Amino acid sequence: MKGRDVYVIGAGMSSFGEHWDSSLRELIVDAAIKAIADSKIEGKQLQAVYGGCMASGLFAGQEHVGALIADYLGLNPLPSTRLEAACASGSVAMRNGIMAIASGFYDVVAVGGVEKMTDVSTEMASTTLGGAGDEEWELFNGATFPALYALMARRHMLEYGTTEEQMAMVAVKNHANAAKNRYAQFQKEITIDTVMKSQYVASPLKLFDCSPLTDGAAAVILASGDVAKKICEKPIKLIASSQASDSLALANRASFSSLRATQIAAKEAFTQAGIKSKDVDVAELHDCFTIAELMAMEDLGFCEKGKSGKMVEAGQTKIGSDIPINTSGGLKGCGHPVGATGVKQIVEIAWQLRGEATGRQVKNAEIGLTHNVGGSGATAVVHLLKKDF
Amino acid sequence: MKGRDVYVIGAGMSSFGEHWDSSLRELIVDAAIKAIADSKIEGKQLQAVYGGCMASGLFAGQEHVGALIADYLGLNPLPSTRLEAACASGSVAMRNGIMAIASGFYDVVAVGGVEKMTDVSTEMASTTLGGAGDEEWELFNGATFPALYALMARRHMLEYGTTEEQMAMVAVKNHANAAKNRYAQFQKEITIDTVMKSQYVASPLKLFDCSPLTDGAAAVILASGDVAKKICEKPIKLIASSQASDSLALANRASFSSLRATQIAAKEAFTQAGIKSKDVDVAELHDCFTIAELMAMEDLGFCEKGKSGKMVEAGQTKIGSDIPINTSGGLKGCGHPVGATGVKQIVEIAWQLRGEATGRQVKNAEIGLTHNVGGSGATAVVHLLKKDF
Repeated sequence: MKGRDVYVIGAGMSSFGEHWDSSLRELIVDAAIKAIADSKIEGKQLQAVYGGCMASGLFAGQEHVGALIADYLGLNPLPSTRLEAACASGSVAMRNGIMAIASGFYDVVAVGGVEKMTDVSTEMASTTLGGAGDEEWELFNGATFPALYALMARRHMLEYGTTEEQMAMVAVKNHANAAKNRYAQFQKEITIDTVMKSQYVASPLKLFDCSPLTDGAAAVILASGDVAKKICEKPIKLIASSQASDSLALANRASFSSLRATQIAAKEAFTQAGIKSKDVDVAELHDCFTIAELMAMEDLGFCEKGKSGKMVEAGQTKIGSDIPINTSGGLKGCGHPVGATGVKQIVEIAWQLRGEATGRQVKNAEIGLTHNVGGSGATAVVHLLKKDF
Repeated sequence: MKGRDVYVIGAGMSSFGEHWDSSLRELIVDAAIKAIADSKIEGKQLQAVYGGCMASGLFAGQEHVGALIADYLGLNPLPSTRLEAACASGSVAMRNGIMAIASGFYDVVAVGGVEKMTDVSTEMASTTLGGAGDEEWELFNGATFPALYALMARRHMLEYGTTEEQMAMVAVKNHANAAKNRYAQFQKEITIDTVMKSQYVASPLKLFDCSPLTDGAAAVILASGDVAKKICEKPIKLIASSQASDSLALANRASFSSLRATQIAAKEAFTQAGIKSKDVDVAELHDCFTIAELMAMEDLGFCEKGKSGKMVEAGQTKIGSDIPINTSGGLKGCGHPVGATGVKQIVEIAWQLRGEATGRQVKNAEIGLTHNVGGSGATAVVHLLKKDF
């Protein structure tokens, strides 16, 4: 990674779920205060704030979320900026927080992500999320988000023989992990039967193949090497940050069974860090739908193309296996407040690398990966983090 | 400024106005292609894209604007990110483009801003813009954006004796400048009478005190010092980039007659650059309402507090005076596509410092300033640029 070293020195999140009694601003304040407290810094040591949020305008009538965050955290007059890349908004906020420190502009910054999705009707939420794809070519013509991923699932099944049962196993695993995460939206295990007997949302994807609508926020404190080494007992080093784009509309992609943006971002991230996918000990992947986790496993190099279904079937992504995936419960089990997800992934990896993921800890985790997707794959962001204590 | 040197090596914009026949994506492509052509680089030399946009979700049903921009410019798989800080969205995109280069992450990036505001009803546009303030405490209770600035205008009149005629003179000057700018929305001069006889929108602000709803886009190409000196004949150096926040709701501010965020950002910018306000040769200020330009003149140090009305009355901000303000026509005359404005200000200053502002050129301009406000002052961003050839 270019520029000065950057470390995660604090992490926190709100519980994820349907928070009828909490507003957008209350959720981000909750997460940010936990991250600040965890970092042992005082708020006044912060120098800038970066917040990821996808659609506060449509969800809450509120734009200008950067200023809102600084205001309600009592952090004025710090510069505070919102970043957006649909469901990868949290990760692009991370990237810009990283660059703000790498450039020398700042030494300590807060990065947060937030979304309040349940204040609108399900129909309105569906339309809003459709804005992550190509509004003119997809949403306007009736293609909802599950429909886009259903097309990808069908293609993956056709090309590689992936089955609905294998997709169901992703959900079962992620629910099992979520059951051990007190911040998760769904803290309960499910069976393959639960998934297979749930109703179709967009065939072959059923209700339990889909991540839910979620309210929630997550935050981390980033610091330069100098600061981190001075004040932090368990600094986690950022060793790669990469991002790639692909066509907004699915129809223009070279392939329906893999995400090119993920492949490119992954390649760059591993090059930046000088490691390979087999060196990763724990990973948070973007499982907005179960098929997305399968494709990501392949695109990130955790298995050969087309082999992800069998890998999940063999239990090779469970906690205790070689590469535990979505120990937090993922988007499926932990929940998916779209703007918060990318930051929550960093929080989970930080906890894992610090040995603090009680109940779901991956033994001897040294290197972690986060993979966050915007839309149906038009944006992909990969971060690599390393235990440095 | 910290980190590596950053230069503007190309600039371009769409015409500003009511573009019934152009979509959001067409506007940004228009501006970006002009900026790329102006820079003499090829698109393939770009390494990342930063786009400012305030409310594409509410205005166009389209989020994920970063990916949209890369896609329609044929720039995939470059990382492309949207930034938002209400009407300062273009300037926060600038700041993050600057940090991306200062950090060493990239050598050449594109920064754009865009807004398509006229596809919705005026009522919907008004509600959307209200999301730049505090939705829960202001908009929800009926305070439109002109109402907030009207409160500031009343307070300024009370404290300093500023008159409605002096505010009108800001509009007259900016229309006179816009008349010489072929990209401006209103290429026609007006008189004080035009303003004074126009209808009240929120007393004391009349229709001609208010910036319009506008469709438009602007873009610049930024490069590191190495690249700029190699390929650019007229490089413009960024010598300061600062941003500050204040409470989102007007009611919580220490003062109604000045913007504290502007004062803090200005102080930091002048410190970064090691210059004073009197060293500035040309400035683009945030005149969303005429009173906003008057307050900004004071908050930026172009005159003593309370003296801006008299300064405008004396013609001391016209082209040919000591400090020409809003040579582009400003938000009032050139138009205010909210997400584009911050980048358009950089474009105008780049043209002025390069000696290419035909018909409205400021003689011997060496240093330029841009000042961009989000909401009613919850975000303020200041950039300082210097001719370096």
